[in-house]
Amino acid sequence: MKKTLLSLALLANLSYAAPEGTTVTAGPLTALDKLSSFNSVKSAPIPKRNIAIENWQTQNGAKVLFVAAQELPMVDVRLLFDAGSARDGDKFGLASLVSRMLDEGTPTRNTDQIAASFENIGATFSSAAYRDMFIVDLRVLSDPQYLEPALDVYSDIIANPIFPDAAFKRIFDGAQVGQQQKLQSPSAQASILFYQHLYGSHPYAHPSNGTPDSLKKITTNDLKQFHQQYFVANNATIAIVGALSREQAQQVAEKISRGLNAGQAAAKLNTVTPLAKAVHKHLSFPSQQTHIMMGQASIQRGNPDYEALYVGNEILGGGGFNSLLMNELREKRGLTYGVYSSIVPMHVQGPFIVSLSTRSDQTQQALDLLRTNLRQFIRDGVSDSQLQEAKDNILGSFPLSTSSNSSILAYLGSIGFYNLPLDYLDSFNERINRVTSSQIKAAFRKHIHPDKMLTVTVGQGITVANP
Amino acid sequence: MKKTLLSLALLANLSYAAPEGTTVTAGPLTALDKLSSFNSVKSAPIPKRNIAIENWQTQNGAKVLFVAAQELPMVDVRLLFDAGSARDGDKFGLASLVSRMLDEGTPTRNTDQIAASFENIGATFSSAAYRDMFIVDLRVLSDPQYLEPALDVYSDIIANPIFPDAAFKRIFDGAQVGQQQKLQSPSAQASILFYQHLYGSHPYAHPSNGTPDSLKKITTNDLKQFHQQYFVANNATIAIVGALSREQAQQVAEKISRGLNAGQAAAKLNTVTPLAKAVHKHLSFPSQQTHIMMGQASIQRGNPDYEALYVGNEILGGGGFNSLLMNELREKRGLTYGVYSSIVPMHVQGPFIVSLSTRSDQTQQALDLLRTNLRQFIRDGVSDSQLQEAKDNILGSFPLSTSSNSSILAYLGSIGFYNLPLDYLDSFNERINRVTSSQIKAAFRKHIHPDKMLTVTVGQGITVANP
Repeated sequence: MKKTLLSLALLANLSYAAPEGTTVTAGPLTALDKLSSFNSVKSAPIPKRNIAIENWQTQNGAKVLFVAAQELPMVDVRLLFDAGSARDGDKFGLASLVSRMLDEGTPTRNTDQIAASFENIGATFSSAAYRDMFIVDLRVLSDPQYLEPALDVYSDIIANPIFPDAAFKRIFDGAQVGQQQKLQSPSAQASILFYQHLYGSHPYAHPSNGTPDSLKKITTNDLKQFHQQYFVANNATIAIVGALSREQAQQVAEKISRGLNAGQAAAKLNTVTPLAKAVHKHLSFPSQQTHIMMGQASIQRGNPDYEALYVGNEILGGGGFNSLLMNELREKRGLTYGVYSSIVPMHVQGPFIVSLSTRSDQTQQALDLLRTNLRQFIRDGVSDSQLQEAKDNILGSFPLSTSSNSSILAYLGSIGFYNLPLDYLDSFNERINRVTSSQIKAAFRKHIHPDKMLTVTVGQGITVANP
Repeated sequence: MKKTLLSLALLANLSYAAPEGTTVTAGPLTALDKLSSFNSVKSAPIPKRNIAIENWQTQNGAKVLFVAAQELPMVDVRLLFDAGSARDGDKFGLASLVSRMLDEGTPTRNTDQIAASFENIGATFSSAAYRDMFIVDLRVLSDPQYLEPALDVYSDIIANPIFPDAAFKRIFDGAQVGQQQKLQSPSAQASILFYQHLYGSHPYAHPSNGTPDSLKKITTNDLKQFHQQYFVANNATIAIVGALSREQAQQVAEKISRGLNAGQAAAKLNTVTPLAKAVHKHLSFPSQQTHIMMGQASIQRGNPDYEALYVGNEILGGGGFNSLLMNELREKRGLTYGVYSSIVPMHVQGPFIVSLSTRSDQTQQALDLLRTNLRQFIRDGVSDSQLQEAKDNILGSFPLSTSSNSSILAYLGSIGFYNLPLDYLDSFNERINRVTSSQIKAAFRKHIHPDKMLTVTVGQGITVANP
């Protein structure tokens, strides 16, 4: 099944204001899918959309960001709580289970009624927990005959989930089946090990979906307590994009938040202690391909070096088939179908990640090449023509990545959630254009440290000193 | 990410007129997800929707089925070609590559323009190839200012794809990454082996997505020839559900089909030669869980015994947590999180499949129990109370499974594609209610043969005579 998710894919690629989970959890398939033809974008310019963000608070303190978009008779809503898996405590997978259980029933609606209510009016609902964000999405027609009943159900789900035991049994079993499948996937195992050893005792360390054992410790009572603590107005951001006036959007936001207690914002997360030296963790896995992840904790949202790192990373390994790493490992040596690097700023230091799969007997060669190229890149920096090409690619694809309401919604949610400036989208071109090659070199030297990186390999064909 | 796809999940569960791929490719997670609470459905009855199907042909011979649904200002279109992977010839994966490449460009639109065109008007597009069906879906608002431009792009994609080489390189690489991932999944390997040994030299035998080697033999020229031969009006079914009059729907159908040559319907597929005796194929796989698939070729669409087999299978292993197999293997003995059976009628004899995962050291116990219970079920048949409960479950969930336009669209497409009677949905309740326990016993004895079944195991903990 193939869907036209180009804008969202590009959004994830930008990894700018996208939910951090989008990029972090992107596997090789996603990565390949998002390699749209940047050149053809340039040949068919898409008009820049003026994105005026309005901002206010609901009566009980929820933050609201709104973009009026009258082109389509639709409304997209994203409610974000600072309640990702970083808030799991010692019950790894708790936020994830809350997201799966959210629409399983309220005091006045069972799960089938909820599903039928949305479907009968053509609305779509989804919820998900990433490391930082807990997201609850709604898309519905803007005509009040659809919008009003959809908001009734949506606000009921958010404020009054009852987490019934029977549904919990079913969802729990489904989660355990998912855990079994992850045990059999080298790339999933690599990702789990990578976060575990990169983040140690920090709440980013455990998998958002928990582990087979951690899930067993969770009860419906835990879900209720989690909901009570974190699903509160002072911990919420509401993003709205659609065919509404400002006044209508205010009513929508009040309706969404009215069932929430004011409560308190979640406490700030501790900063991450970087690795003091290079570490290599290896998991022997009987697969033909070895999955490699290499990286470190890098920067948090709002770091002023982000634009330089972002443009530099586009050249290094973020820019698809034209990137330096892709050229060295794929085009010149055929070691992999694809190699990608990304920088994911989060509440605190999110990861810088380079990842690829390679035939197991080529693992050491791939690792050596990765390290050599990374050091050279940081030593030599980028040329003027590389810089210009990267800017062209980024700026050429940006209009497309903000061409749909749902992609604007994703940006909007992240801008509110991470307290980014409201002109974040409008100033995007200017900020990218300002980046110089010396800024890139300085930013990489400051933030990226090849001698203190974590390397994770899952597969065969390698001997590791400290496995 | 969780979506309210309850209706579609139930649709797949019914496996009635759903695309055969939906059920066939359903993994354990999907299966668990679809176990909605049937009891709560009964306590909250959803009004039966009157589904009047209109039927005609376009000027160049495409078959059209239409249901007017004025509740929502939307139109759902599904175009089906008899061009699934059964038409791959010796280029396994050809139909699948066509489906991935379809929206990569036309003479007048590149892939980014296509994506932006749909997104700017809030339309969603997708395409997929199953064993029998090639499906191209469109959902768009019914207002002509959205509908007309969406149909322009949709009909252009269908009639004039150019399959550009640059995109092919990218899609091909993505497909190969997917192949690598399948190599590492015991359940994917089990499914591949199951079809391979069940169908032998029949075109259902190979994986719809092809194999790592078969994909390498495919060129863009093959894609063009496949498109030219099979994307023709006489090989097409157009299903339309939405806020249109009959006249408007006729215009929509003409617009969709106008770029297609009349052409010829695909030739009938050969019937399947059943296995002459029981066969067990085992793939040793270093996983903690062993994946088991057991089954045989069963019936084709339109077989008069289908209702009896369907209701019987609901009791045996189709009905979720209350099924006989679930009770014996899961509830009583804790051997698995879930065991499911399904019967998937297709153009020719589709499979009867029982599948589960179990801890490797319990594999033999699970196999013995499966076989014993299957024999007992066929020998003893079902009790009156089992029969009534199964009918209640099926009929209780049916209204919900036809409560959304997209689920009606899926039924409609299958009714047209498989030449089922136009009253198929309206007569559903009656046909299910008519089934007797003696019909179930007779149908299972006639069609299901435990002594001639294929068993596939992928994992460890088992010794097999003929691996």
